[in-house]
Amino acid sequence: MDTSVGPAFHSAGSRAESVESATTRDVSRRVTRVDRWLATRLQQRIRPSAVRLVLWDGQPAGAAPERAIGDLYIRDRATLLGLIVHPDLRFGEAYMAGRVEVRGRLDEIVEALTGLSRPRPSLRNRLAVALASRNTTRAGRRNVHRHYDLGNDFYASWLDPQLVYTCAYYPDPSTPLDAAQVAKLDLVCRKLQIKPGDRVIEAGCGWGALALHMAREYGAHVRAFNVSREQLTFARERAAREGLTGRVEFIDDDYRNVTGTCDVFVSVGMLEHVGLRQFHALSDVIGRTLKRDGGRGLLHFIGRDAPTPLNAWIRRRIFPGAYPPTLSEVATRVLAPAGMSILDVENLRLHYARTLEHWYERFAAARDQARASFSEEFARAWELYLAGSRAAFVTGWLQLFQVVFAPLESAPPTWVRAAIYKTEATG
Amino acid sequence: MDTSVGPAFHSAGSRAESVESATTRDVSRRVTRVDRWLATRLQQRIRPSAVRLVLWDGQPAGAAPERAIGDLYIRDRATLLGLIVHPDLRFGEAYMAGRVEVRGRLDEIVEALTGLSRPRPSLRNRLAVALASRNTTRAGRRNVHRHYDLGNDFYASWLDPQLVYTCAYYPDPSTPLDAAQVAKLDLVCRKLQIKPGDRVIEAGCGWGALALHMAREYGAHVRAFNVSREQLTFARERAAREGLTGRVEFIDDDYRNVTGTCDVFVSVGMLEHVGLRQFHALSDVIGRTLKRDGGRGLLHFIGRDAPTPLNAWIRRRIFPGAYPPTLSEVATRVLAPAGMSILDVENLRLHYARTLEHWYERFAAARDQARASFSEEFARAWELYLAGSRAAFVTGWLQLFQVVFAPLESAPPTWVRAAIYKTEATG
Repeated sequence: MDTSVGPAFHSAGSRAESVESATTRDVSRRVTRVDRWLATRLQQRIRPSAVRLVLWDGQPAGAAPERAIGDLYIRDRATLLGLIVHPDLRFGEAYMAGRVEVRGRLDEIVEALTGLSRPRPSLRNRLAVALASRNTTRAGRRNVHRHYDLGNDFYASWLDPQLVYTCAYYPDPSTPLDAAQVAKLDLVCRKLQIKPGDRVIEAGCGWGALALHMAREYGAHVRAFNVSREQLTFARERAAREGLTGRVEFIDDDYRNVTGTCDVFVSVGMLEHVGLRQFHALSDVIGRTLKRDGGRGLLHFIGRDAPTPLNAWIRRRIFPGAYPPTLSEVATRVLAPAGMSILDVENLRLHYARTLEHWYERFAAARDQARASFSEEFARAWELYLAGSRAAFVTGWLQLFQVVFAPLESAPPTWVRAAIYKTEATG
Repeated sequence: MDTSVGPAFHSAGSRAESVESATTRDVSRRVTRVDRWLATRLQQRIRPSAVRLVLWDGQPAGAAPERAIGDLYIRDRATLLGLIVHPDLRFGEAYMAGRVEVRGRLDEIVEALTGLSRPRPSLRNRLAVALASRNTTRAGRRNVHRHYDLGNDFYASWLDPQLVYTCAYYPDPSTPLDAAQVAKLDLVCRKLQIKPGDRVIEAGCGWGALALHMAREYGAHVRAFNVSREQLTFARERAAREGLTGRVEFIDDDYRNVTGTCDVFVSVGMLEHVGLRQFHALSDVIGRTLKRDGGRGLLHFIGRDAPTPLNAWIRRRIFPGAYPPTLSEVATRVLAPAGMSILDVENLRLHYARTLEHWYERFAAARDQARASFSEEFARAWELYLAGSRAAFVTGWLQLFQVVFAPLESAPPTWVRAAIYKTEATG
């Protein structure tokens, strides 16, 4: 019985305490016939994915795929059962605790494993969507704080220099991350045809890169809303340094409290944190702030083809309260009630996969820092979150929609799209 | 009491019998105080629209707008009541029968009048949507025959030479109609990235222009389905003349009977005739014919921002069984059940308004021919249908969506849109 988990098993660095204790605890556990039968079933479910299951006795779980891209090492019976009953949640929990280990590239293996729990509109999914968090103003602030206030240093260690934490846009797949993030900011401005003097409201502005780009490059006047203190501090310092304080105001408030009117309403990467039950509130905000004649807006969000809750582990560990909506949910609950026409939709899911590939690589390079500041468990969680999200965009579990809209009374921002793309260098 | 309706009242040609008899019948009717009170209410509802109501005594209906763009002359009480109770249906019926006349440009006045019956998700609308025609195969064939088999000569008198009877695409607003139709065919091909040897299924091919363009310009093999005999005859003759019979097959069958598989599924201007209750059938067809790996498709259709039945008069006189769906209805009832991701949506409503402007002008020039072949009533109906449809697209009552989709397993046809637009000459 071989239970050794040598350095060949990837954990991108030395193993933390919790991992060691898991190893010690389970070392003497026998693999029963039931264990092996269950593992064989599991192996069959992931068969096409070319990942080989190995149990805690070091033996593969029956008919393994011929050309495996890697091994998934299961350390104990509880983990095996968890992977069978609720893989969405249990894989992440087990990986964090070091109760599953992978031999091979984590990102490739996670992509291959997506076959385990393909999202479908099951009763459980519909229930989970219906019971989703209400995301009150207070809960929203708490959720934001938990994720986005981990410290600017942490995000700076693996994001681009402007700290743009949303899907980038790659004019060519080989574009570097920082250029792709600038290209995204610019694409959003061109889709909206931002003009000097335009009054823009941005809901959920992150570290402020888009607001600053609109003001600096297009002469817009931006009021940008956010409830993350750390992000606002960074954004305000940057505005001051760039001499843009007269044109960009960073406001510490919830999107639901947005007042006044604007020519342009934009929100990049916030909608997936709003939650279905608050869509009416966002709809009200858009309806009451956006100018009817000549107004236009853009929502950029992670979405789905069919209503499905976010992966349970991601919801527990990474994004509490998050829900990636379908285009229909956004159209019927946010845009139509506000009297908005959908003018343009672009699905950039492969661009998000590429962005996450960049983030994953950069996170791996900065892993020791994350481990030192937080813990091994934290580092493993983030590693898996980035690899898993990339896999979801590659396989089409998740979509990335950019939706341009305008009030019925307004003409589209451009007569034809060619006007938006004529300045774009393509590969 | 002035009841004369002089030549200043526009009917784009001499008046037909039914119009004369209406005049004669109502000439002696008195305008009562109740009539005037009702007309004043109606005038108030259309006030912002700058159209002046004139009753059958020749007097305006109370406080008319100061700068009227035209007059709407109401010939009798029944028409007045009809316009109050059910303007959607009654305006068209009255116009056809010559019981309302307009002074000024019909297209401008119709656009102004759209304020009378703004579509909203009322109970009546929802009922009408729920009770919409089932559009069985047989009913579908009958509906198609009624509209599209009016004779190729009729359509040739006011469409472009290729007889493209769907929204054109104007690289520049000044592009002529025929060039704009070719630009539309080409845009569809570029969005789908048609390659030599691609097997294409086209559902509802009209007079065949798109199928022939895909085969001739892009080397595709096209099977194009249609149930209009007149259209098929025209399309087959054209294919033979252009030596494309080896690459384009025009098939006399309903879209529901499409068999085999394809790399590309395309349907331009058919979905609005399918009807909500048959969306599942279209979904099945797409799901079973489109190749999962590398497949892609496009639906081009007249749509809505919110579920609303088509104008009652248009349904009665022009398009029985038609229903312009919302993007959500198409996403949830056609695309999601077939396992398709939405990749790209473009709203071309102003391009349809421009197309209809061209059609309206050309129809006016060929009006005498339509009147001679059919009747004055027919000519008035078509005039109003073209003017009214243009108004609906200008004001945002109707949308024109082009939706590109692909199976989950397929990458989008292009990495970035710039690849689609780099060859497009812009104004």
